[in-house]
This record gives sequence, structure tokens and C-alpha cells, in this order.
Amino acid sequence: MRVLAGRLDLCAINTATLGFQAPIGEVIDVVARAGFGGIAPWRREVEGGNVASIARHIRAAGLTVTGYCRSTYLPATTHTEFLANVEANRRAIDDAAELCAHSFFMVVGSLPPGSKDIEAARAQVAEGTTLLLEYARTHGVRISLEPLHPVYAADRSCLTTLAEALNLCERIEPAGPAPWLGVGIDVYHVWWDPQLTAQIARAGTAKRIFGFHVNDWLVPSRDVLNDRGMMGDGIIDIAGIRNTIEEAGYSGLVEVEIFSSQDWWTRSMEETLRVCAERLQSVC
Amino acid sequence: MRVLAGRLDLCAINTATLGFQAPIGEVIDVVARAGFGGIAPWRREVEGGNVASIARHIRAAGLTVTGYCRSTYLPATTHTEFLANVEANRRAIDDAAELCAHSFFMVVGSLPPGSKDIEAARAQVAEGTTLLLEYARTHGVRISLEPLHPVYAADRSCLTTLAEALNLCERIEPAGPAPWLGVGIDVYHVWWDPQLTAQIARAGTAKRIFGFHVNDWLVPSRDVLNDRGMMGDGIIDIAGIRNTIEEAGYSGLVEVEIFSSQDWWTRSMEETLRVCAERLQSVC
Repeated sequence: MRVLAGRLDLCAINTATLGFQAPIGEVIDVVARAGFGGIAPWRREVEGGNVASIARHIRAAGLTVTGYCRSTYLPATTHTEFLANVEANRRAIDDAAELCAHSFFMVVGSLPPGSKDIEAARAQVAEGTTLLLEYARTHGVRISLEPLHPVYAADRSCLTTLAEALNLCERIEPAGPAPWLGVGIDVYHVWWDPQLTAQIARAGTAKRIFGFHVNDWLVPSRDVLNDRGMMGDGIIDIAGIRNTIEEAGYSGLVEVEIFSSQDWWTRSMEETLRVCAERLQSVC
Repeated sequence: MRVLAGRLDLCAINTATLGFQAPIGEVIDVVARAGFGGIAPWRREVEGGNVASIARHIRAAGLTVTGYCRSTYLPATTHTEFLANVEANRRAIDDAAELCAHSFFMVVGSLPPGSKDIEAARAQVAEGTTLLLEYARTHGVRISLEPLHPVYAADRSCLTTLAEALNLCERIEPAGPAPWLGVGIDVYHVWWDPQLTAQIARAGTAKRIFGFHVNDWLVPSRDVLNDRGMMGDGIIDIAGIRNTIEEAGYSGLVEVEIFSSQDWWTRSMEETLRVCAERLQSVC
């Protein structure tokens, strides 16, 4: 396992961690000044802005774009809405290309309003991802499917496990030396999975680990959406999971992504980044 | 699939649904008067009382005991504590025998305080369940392992999927015509699982489906512990899951178990039972 102490260049900040307190230009500067090697911006910070200029700013700051967050949910009630969702994602992939993002992160969505048919949602996800992969490949953008914790299965992601995400990858894109479709692994979503070690190994063998997110699961948790913890404050064996992922061949950045409306988002960006840096170098 | 309309005798009430508003004697009477065929009491209602008398009361009311809830969590920091947890469960199994419970329901527990090692917790669960199965068999009590939704993986159950529960059953007890170790399937915990249909079939083939709980997953959910929904108010395809379970050979009762501190527990037992009866006969 790589030593992160003294190697913040191996670490990245997902901008959601900073609570969207400032325009993307300021966020880029503060992340770079803090010594991190990468950044993962969100569409809300980019769309409607001058994407080429944001991309230049990030490069000039010496930052890698680990990922671009995130897809419009795919499943919809009508086929027209479904196609509109696919199209919205194509526009986001254009921006991911301009940003030189390492991958476009997909949170796939789940049951459209009124539906109880999760298998139908999964079928739409497979269809939409197939369409998007074709587009992304021709634009030089890799796609990371991010399985979400099953607590979000109703409203955010019918894709709940690493095994399912890899099954979907294999259905859509044959194995090869450099796949365009892979997975983003976030410790919050996968730490509980009894198949975790085996599925990480499988993902690594297939060269499909495109991103790695760290944070922590607090006990008790006030809110499963916006009460994620700083690394070390919860019960996830983050170093153990990182070790497994790096043994599987992952050599990309370790990205912090913390949704924390009542704690970290209320602090200054500088303070949050300082603690992220400390914890990355000590408990991850 | 069995028709439940006019067949409340095929349905049971887990007493947690009624919020523990009244002593068990009153609860037995109100459930029986409402026409249900079974009841699943909790240890808090039974322990310290006259168990033989409660058992007679339930039988006299014409009710089956679908399950006895629930185990003391197994994993512990020290071996002494672990053995004490096992022993507490042996005492509960004595009561389950006296109540003629169809099975003793186990919620297995997870990380002891300060631990981040979920595999160690799983090992303790396997060891403890092995000890308890030996005891339960000699006392004529079946054990239902209840996998819980992964949202509880940190503090309530390191056993998160039906597949894992069945793996554990097979490790501990060889397949046979009438196993003593099986699973309790609660729609709230398993609805999201991409392997659900296959694992229900597997459980059915092994004759290991010992109980079936219904309720619903609300969107949004105010609290993943105590904001479960009445059947029909959420997004679970309950009838679909029941159909799969009955096709797999389950012929036991359909048991309502709803934890709802802000809604159903604030209503009268009679009202909650009336709505349970309606929904069981219409949307389940």
C-alpha cells in the first residue's frame, strides 16, 4: 500500500466536501494551495460557466480532475423523459472531456415517481449506460458507475453493489486491456458488503477501478444523506479497504468526498482541507 | 399465490407494530379479536412475566406464535461478554420453546464499541449461532436468522443479505428435509437486493424460509429505524415478493412488523390493526 504521509499529491478533494461555499475558481485555488493533487468538481459549479476557462484554471493550478460529478438519473416514467436524461448526460460528458476528467461519475437513479418496479429501473439504467458509453468513448471520456449504499435504492441508485456494477460493465463492454466503463468505489457505499474483497479483486483484474472515495460512516448517523463523517471519526476500516484496492492494482488518487450539512459544511474551506490532509496521512 | 382476502387467519401481527402500548395480555386479546391467525411477541413483553401463563393465553386466544423476537446481539469486545450474550439467548430460546414459537428470531448484532472489524463480528456470529443452534435443536426451537438492511450494518446486523444468511445456514447445518436453522425474510430489509429472486428460490429449495414480514419503505423516510411504512404507502412491491416466496414453497403466515414511532405507534391498537387487515387483503 502506498504511504500517503507527505504525499498529498496522491490525494484529491471532491468539491462537495467543501459545501459549495464559494465559486469554483476560489475552490480550485484553495484546494491547490492546500497541497492536494486533484479535484473533482460538480456540474452545478461548472454548467453555465466558461468550461474551457475552468479547465485551464484547474490545469494551471497543477490539479488533476479525478472525476466529474455526476450524471442525471436515468430511469424515467416516459421514454421521452428517459431520452432527455440520456441527452443531459451527453452534455455533461462534453464538459467532462473539456475538463480532462479522469472519468464521468454516474449515480444512476432508481424508481421514477409512482413506480415499484426496480427491475424496470435497472433495465433503463442498462440501456442508458449503453448509449452513454458509446458517446463517451468517442469523446475520450471514461465512465465510472458508482454503486450506492442500498439505503438509497429507492430514490437515488438501483445499482447497489460492486458486484452489480461489474456485472453491468461486463454486459455492456467486453473485457479488454483498457476499458472505458468501470466503477467508482466509495467506502461509504461498500464497506458493509460481505463480497467486498472478492469484488474489488475482480474489478482490479478487469482494470475497471476508475476512482476511490474516502469518508466515514458515523455511529449514530443523524442523516444517511448528509451526515457522512471525516475519515477516522466512524467505523469504516478505510486503510484496510485502500490496501485491498491498491493490491488490486489501483494507482489513482484517493479522493475525499464528505456530505456533511451540519458539521463540515459549516466550517471554513481551509479548516476542512487541513483536517482532510491530516486524516488522509494518518488514518487512511 | 394464496389469496389473503377473507383469510386473516393466514396473517399475523408482530407486536412491535402496536408500539408496546399495553401489557401483552391486552395485546393478545386485541389481535385475536381483530381476526388475525398469529402473533409474534417480543422478549420485553415476556421476560420477567409468567411465560407459561402467557403461552396459555395465546393458545386460548387461538393464535399461532409466528416468531419470538429477538436475540441479544452476539459480537462483543471480550470473550466473557460474548459468552454472556450466547447465554442470554439460551434463556430466550427456553421461552421460545414455552411459547411454542414457530422460530426464535435472531438479529445478530455487529461491531462492538470501538471495533472497525466487521469480519471479526461475522466470525463471532457464526460461532455464537453454532452454539445456539445446538441448544435450540435440543429444545425443539427453530432459529430464523434475519438479514437486516445494510443501513444497519454498523450497529445492528453484520448479516446484511439473504445470500449471506443462507451461506451461514449451510456452513452451520447440513442440508436436510427439515432444517432447524433458516431465515426470516422482511421486505424492508431485502427489497433492494438484486439477488432477491434467486436467493428466495435457494432458501425455498432448502426449506429454510421460516418467516415472512411485511411493511413498506417510505420515500422520503424520516428515520431508517422507526419510520417504516404501512403496506401500500411506500415503494416495495410486496405482492411481487410474496408471490416469489410462496412459489418457493413458503406456506407460513404473513406477519406485519412496522416500527413507526411518529405515526402508527401514536394510534390506537384497534385502528392500526384495522388498517393492517385492510392492506394485507388489498395490497400484499
